[in-house]
Amino acid sequence: MSNLDFKKFKPFSDLSHGDISKSYVSVGRIETVKQTSGPTLMVLMDSTQSFTFKAFIKPGERAFPECELGDVVEVEYRVSERQGSIEGEVRSMKKISQEHVADFEEYIEKKEEERFQAKDIELTIQSPVLEALKPRFLHVASIIRKAVAQRRPIILRHDADCDGYSSAICLERAILKFMDECTGGDVMSRYNLFRRAPSRAPFYEYEDAVKDVSMMLKDMVKNGAKEPLVIVTDNGSTNEDIFAYKQMKLYNCPIVVIDHHYPGEKDENGNVEVDYFIDGHINPYLEGFDSNVCSGMLGYELARFIYEDNNNSVMIPAMAGLLDHVDGLELKTYVELAQKEGYTTQFMEKLGDLIYLQSHYMRFGEAREFFDDIFGNNLVVQKEIVNLVYPEIEKLYTKTRKIGKQYASVEDFGPFYVVQFDGEKGTARGQYPAVGKSTNLIHAMFEEELNKPVITMTSGSTFLTIRVGDDIKGLSIPEFCTDILSKELSHTGAEGGGHEHAGSVKFVEYAREEVITAFINYLKKISKLN
Amino acid sequence: MSNLDFKKFKPFSDLSHGDISKSYVSVGRIETVKQTSGPTLMVLMDSTQSFTFKAFIKPGERAFPECELGDVVEVEYRVSERQGSIEGEVRSMKKISQEHVADFEEYIEKKEEERFQAKDIELTIQSPVLEALKPRFLHVASIIRKAVAQRRPIILRHDADCDGYSSAICLERAILKFMDECTGGDVMSRYNLFRRAPSRAPFYEYEDAVKDVSMMLKDMVKNGAKEPLVIVTDNGSTNEDIFAYKQMKLYNCPIVVIDHHYPGEKDENGNVEVDYFIDGHINPYLEGFDSNVCSGMLGYELARFIYEDNNNSVMIPAMAGLLDHVDGLELKTYVELAQKEGYTTQFMEKLGDLIYLQSHYMRFGEAREFFDDIFGNNLVVQKEIVNLVYPEIEKLYTKTRKIGKQYASVEDFGPFYVVQFDGEKGTARGQYPAVGKSTNLIHAMFEEELNKPVITMTSGSTFLTIRVGDDIKGLSIPEFCTDILSKELSHTGAEGGGHEHAGSVKFVEYAREEVITAFINYLKKISKLN
Amino acid sequence: MSNLDFKKFKPFSDLSHGDISKSYVSVGRIETVKQTSGPTLMVLMDSTQSFTFKAFIKPGERAFPECELGDVVEVEYRVSERQGSIEGEVRSMKKISQEHVADFEEYIEKKEEERFQAKDIELTIQSPVLEALKPRFLHVASIIRKAVAQRRPIILRHDADCDGYSSAICLERAILKFMDECTGGDVMSRYNLFRRAPSRAPFYEYEDAVKDVSMMLKDMVKNGAKEPLVIVTDNGSTNEDIFAYKQMKLYNCPIVVIDHHYPGEKDENGNVEVDYFIDGHINPYLEGFDSNVCSGMLGYELARFIYEDNNNSVMIPAMAGLLDHVDGLELKTYVELAQKEGYTTQFMEKLGDLIYLQSHYMRFGEAREFFDDIFGNNLVVQKEIVNLVYPEIEKLYTKTRKIGKQYASVEDFGPFYVVQFDGEKGTARGQYPAVGKSTNLIHAMFEEELNKPVITMTSGSTFLTIRVGDDIKGLSIPEFCTDILSKELSHTGAEGGGHEHAGSVKFVEYAREEVITAFINYLKKISKLN
Repeated sequence: MSNLDFKKFKPFSDLSHGDISKSYVSVGRIETVKQTSGPTLMVLMDSTQSFTFKAFIKPGERAFPECELGDVVEVEYRVSERQGSIEGEVRSMKKISQEHVADFEEYIEKKEEERFQAKDIELTIQSPVLEALKPRFLHVASIIRKAVAQRRPIILRHDADCDGYSSAICLERAILKFMDECTGGDVMSRYNLFRRAPSRAPFYEYEDAVKDVSMMLKDMVKNGAKEPLVIVTDNGSTNEDIFAYKQMKLYNCPIVVIDHHYPGEKDENGNVEVDYFIDGHINPYLEGFDSNVCSGMLGYELARFIYEDNNNSVMIPAMAGLLDHVDGLELKTYVELAQKEGYTTQFMEKLGDLIYLQSHYMRFGEAREFFDDIFGNNLVVQKEIVNLVYPEIEKLYTKTRKIGKQYASVEDFGPFYVVQFDGEKGTARGQYPAVGKSTNLIHAMFEEELNKPVITMTSGSTFLTIRVGDDIKGLSIPEFCTDILSKELSHTGAEGGGHEHAGSVKFVEYAREEVITAFINYLKKISKLN
Repeated sequence: MSNLDFKKFKPFSDLSHGDISKSYVSVGRIETVKQTSGPTLMVLMDSTQSFTFKAFIKPGERAFPECELGDVVEVEYRVSERQGSIEGEVRSMKKISQEHVADFEEYIEKKEEERFQAKDIELTIQSPVLEALKPRFLHVASIIRKAVAQRRPIILRHDADCDGYSSAICLERAILKFMDECTGGDVMSRYNLFRRAPSRAPFYEYEDAVKDVSMMLKDMVKNGAKEPLVIVTDNGSTNEDIFAYKQMKLYNCPIVVIDHHYPGEKDENGNVEVDYFIDGHINPYLEGFDSNVCSGMLGYELARFIYEDNNNSVMIPAMAGLLDHVDGLELKTYVELAQKEGYTTQFMEKLGDLIYLQSHYMRFGEAREFFDDIFGNNLVVQKEIVNLVYPEIEKLYTKTRKIGKQYASVEDFGPFYVVQFDGEKGTARGQYPAVGKSTNLIHAMFEEELNKPVITMTSGSTFLTIRVGDDIKGLSIPEFCTDILSKELSHTGAEGGGHEHAGSVKFVEYAREEVITAFINYLKKISKLN
Repeated sequence: MSNLDFKKFKPFSDLSHGDISKSYVSVGRIETVKQTSGPTLMVLMDSTQSFTFKAFIKPGERAFPECELGDVVEVEYRVSERQGSIEGEVRSMKKISQEHVADFEEYIEKKEEERFQAKDIELTIQSPVLEALKPRFLHVASIIRKAVAQRRPIILRHDADCDGYSSAICLERAILKFMDECTGGDVMSRYNLFRRAPSRAPFYEYEDAVKDVSMMLKDMVKNGAKEPLVIVTDNGSTNEDIFAYKQMKLYNCPIVVIDHHYPGEKDENGNVEVDYFIDGHINPYLEGFDSNVCSGMLGYELARFIYEDNNNSVMIPAMAGLLDHVDGLELKTYVELAQKEGYTTQFMEKLGDLIYLQSHYMRFGEAREFFDDIFGNNLVVQKEIVNLVYPEIEKLYTKTRKIGKQYASVEDFGPFYVVQFDGEKGTARGQYPAVGKSTNLIHAMFEEELNKPVITMTSGSTFLTIRVGDDIKGLSIPEFCTDILSKELSHTGAEGGGHEHAGSVKFVEYAREEVITAFINYLKKISKLN
């Protein structure tokens, strides 16, 4: 059985207005099928690009029902014009024989590889961490480029803090730029094929996943869309994300993760736990580094592999690093580059704080164009909004500090002070700053005022949020959670985690006093180590 | 005055692509009018089907303004093609004389009756209850079929539990299948003309009704839609629903109800109270039976009268019955049939529990396609999602039981134990399982552990939820509400209801202790009867 | 340099179907640019009206990229038909020389002035207040008319009480009527170009503004829309609104305000503080009057300047005045006129109360068509819904009074009684009536029952709501806030305000007892003055 010579068929990229009324034969894979009350609309993709076909049997009747989504077909058609665009009027369509499909797949995959493969460009800065991650950048960028080119919808999930937004906005811009190139600048595609969604929880929650699945299925049924590519950034590397990944994998969605949180230890295959559920993973820990190269930096560099000319300012990774309190060569270099572009550290810190505030007001909505402006699409707005809003933020912070000063209790534990604050009695529900940010502000205030290290405990009826001064030794919140909560207080159902010196515990209200007492006792033990 | 001979006019169902460029005269009723910035678009319906007409005078000017929605008109037109469909270009249009309208109405009604009338098919199982309800199935199915065929939008309201979903999904599938037949498979109609909406309350709340009215009016003004048919299932038979029905009837919406909750006693006309506000009613109590034939079973059978070939699996009524804890011949038969299709009781129980969880996560959104998959449209997903999610549900249940064990108080009342639990202190707000399900779990746990019957009281600042062991005699929650709450505690505004042995009371926080004390006193009285 | 003779160009308003296939040259300003996957669509406006052009170079490629939004261009085109409308197929387009743009602007502005300028019609009633405001009505009406005619989107923000709805509905109807005239009755424009949004807070909150900006930017990017005109009514005159205005002014949105709340004193330029951020302002205080001419009256009169034949009934300003408890000649006159149209005072009061209830149920959604019906578009619904719903409202009010009677504490302060009520313990969250309305009901009940004036304090964990009897002298809530809260309790962060005898304080829960004690102490001082 001889191979089909795919080169003899008309490539879609060759079609132009000059071909109107001419007839051709091409081979392509069916990417979309949409039944209207009139004709059946199909989008086919060959090795070069996608092209729209109109097939008509009877109004509302599916034409060529034997040719289904994903099939590779040979199509005979006449080029016609519709609203200024060209499309193909199908004369006949048939699936190519089974043995030729594999040839086609191979041929097109090779072509696609060439086309979608991210180019091996230089990184913006010199960094051993980023250099080590380069193969991962290339791999993930290629997956994203392929999704865009194949009109696969993209869901971009990210942490709702400044680092998460920074990474996500960088990626969004590169993706939309490449999409414009693929679609000829079609505005609707930008909205139909891409959605960014900040997460309420600091991980990809199952609840988010079922909502994503639900929207995805509606899009598939209603518009003939493909399963989306899921991108998770500044979240996604930890075990907490696996439940959501399993849900998306029930529907075969490709998933990639860009994160700098600790992903656990590698197993004998060199994989961390989430690696068994995802298709690409960028995280400095995977190459033996730590979290000091933050997600905003990773997103900024990855964006360049997706689409180099993407309008992202180097201010973004600098700001992300400053707000995430990371340290190291990369932060220093990005900040210096940003300063050369006229961004002072102070301005970036204010802008980062303002992103928290706006994220809070937007209640996890996308607000794509507004964040685009804040991140520098509109430089006048970027500058003026800091002048406008920052004084208001300062007032809110001052008020929070004043309340903390007035109502928090401070107890001397010997080597350190313990500050206790009621996060429900001391913040206004729904207002900015919420509990986490308020805790940071109060903790910082007492650290500055007092002559010994500080541990701050903000509790509510169902949570305890903890911040621990840098100089305190021997204290580990994860250790408290595993050794004490899970063992001695397992009857309370309390659960918690975080970093060594910053974390939180959740419990039912019944258990509040028990958990607080247990932590105080733990602190007494720790006080002897310091 | 001679009758018009409607048979001499061209029936819409005879029109085809062969008629393009030919001219005809037909008579029809105006079903939709939509003014565009160009022509006026009208949909007319004759005795056979609907057909779209385009009338043009001047851009944006209403053509034939004397012919209004609902009028019967004689139309002269030329058949033309548009995007593969055919439509009529109006040459002239005039209202037929008043005396002929009645003839037309009679003629078309007779034809419509023949067309919309549900066929008298066999029930799936042998059941005296279902047999007695058959005329009601036929009546309600015909109302629904007529609404679909006339392009009347449909709002399907249902209880958000497994039984409610089961009934609603069965009806949804049959309605959409028949709609496809009527529209030639137009996907947009499925979304524009049908909406399923789970209810937060266990009845059709006035708040839901005003939102439905508000959406309906927008659809009528914006798109020229008709008043919708409202279908209520697994709710709708009781007095609590009347306020909402009155609201919908202000706008003349037809309403049908499929329910198995006790609808009150029949009056001298053989009607229960809601019957004066609705157009069709299926409920076993209306034929002298009880609630053991649940809504999922009724919906499953009704769906077959709406559209016999509807893809519903007999697993659905079986699962609905299992999760609603009904008993009897029908449950037994459906479960046996489901087992023959390979569904074990255990699998169905897990799947039913998973529906509660997903309903919780979807926050009363429709999630049409996802629930369709879970209910068996995608058998792989149906199976795998149980494997994926059920272990997580089990963990949540175990945690809830552990907390109940630890914090609930158990008091010996002699013939039974009374368990008290704080539903706010013992559950995490917004998390699954919420208070009702948690109460069930804790009640069942203590029933299993203790050697006497159990009464469980879960209270919060504004509610008391009660579960009573089967063996306890003389206790009736409705009686407590009428005899004690309404009389002795009327100053508290507390209100409640439910079944004999399961129900709840709502109150303002001020009254919490009074209500709990009153119920404890009531239990002391009951303890002497046991 | 000779002036261009704009009169020699074809005015868009002269184009008709008779021009199909003919070619012309016109000059206009580019109002909209939308890139499709086919041609570039542009809307141009000359001195007479707007007209749509289609320019095509290559599919998806922006035609004439040198001609940007806002540019004045000379266009050569051929008139063609599309879906019954006419449009222009662009042959060539070029920006007119810089020196001619000023001429064009001047010419068109003069023409626009003539066209958009509101006509100096008679007011509905004789009123010195309204007469003094007339120049402001004309100014604001002209701004609104211009926005409509230029297809500028409109956001209408209003207080969510009866007065706010009354004003907003009057304006909405006039705006939509004028829009219909400008668009030839295009239904979609009514939804794409106009949005009414009740505000949760009693002012234009910054959070609302960022959401408005976010939606506006999406509309601009996605649909090529202009910056919207923001209309604020029954809010908007006070300092609290400025933060939001600054945000909108970052994007150059025009803003007009119609309000009757005290706007502060005028400065040496004759301006109140908000005047520096807005483009038009109607408020009786600006002409030396007080709040007795309410927003519903102002909106009713302004609507006539926007579009005289606007279907608003004089019942609306009468009802607004009754529900806002204003006094004076204007209320008397409007009520008399409403009575002549068959509206009794009692009916209007019930209808007004019902608007509160429906606003509550709609959760600040627009529900445009439903409110239009309630406000009299559907007189049968307007009448019947009062009969249907009012008895239910009465039941809820009776229950609230009963709970107030039972649980509120009443203390004799000598010259007056002080009623204390826990607004969280005494109302059901999310239910109607909420705290504010409940406070009014309880206050009125005790005023009626007791033989001395009454002060009612409803507190919750984070708020204190205060109502003070008319006869009590020397008490001022704003004074309490400035003199005591801000000075003696500044460490609590408590803030408040309102009128002399009705207002509220917000605080964090920690400060609840301190604030209540401070207010009780203040009342003790006041008691000595009475």
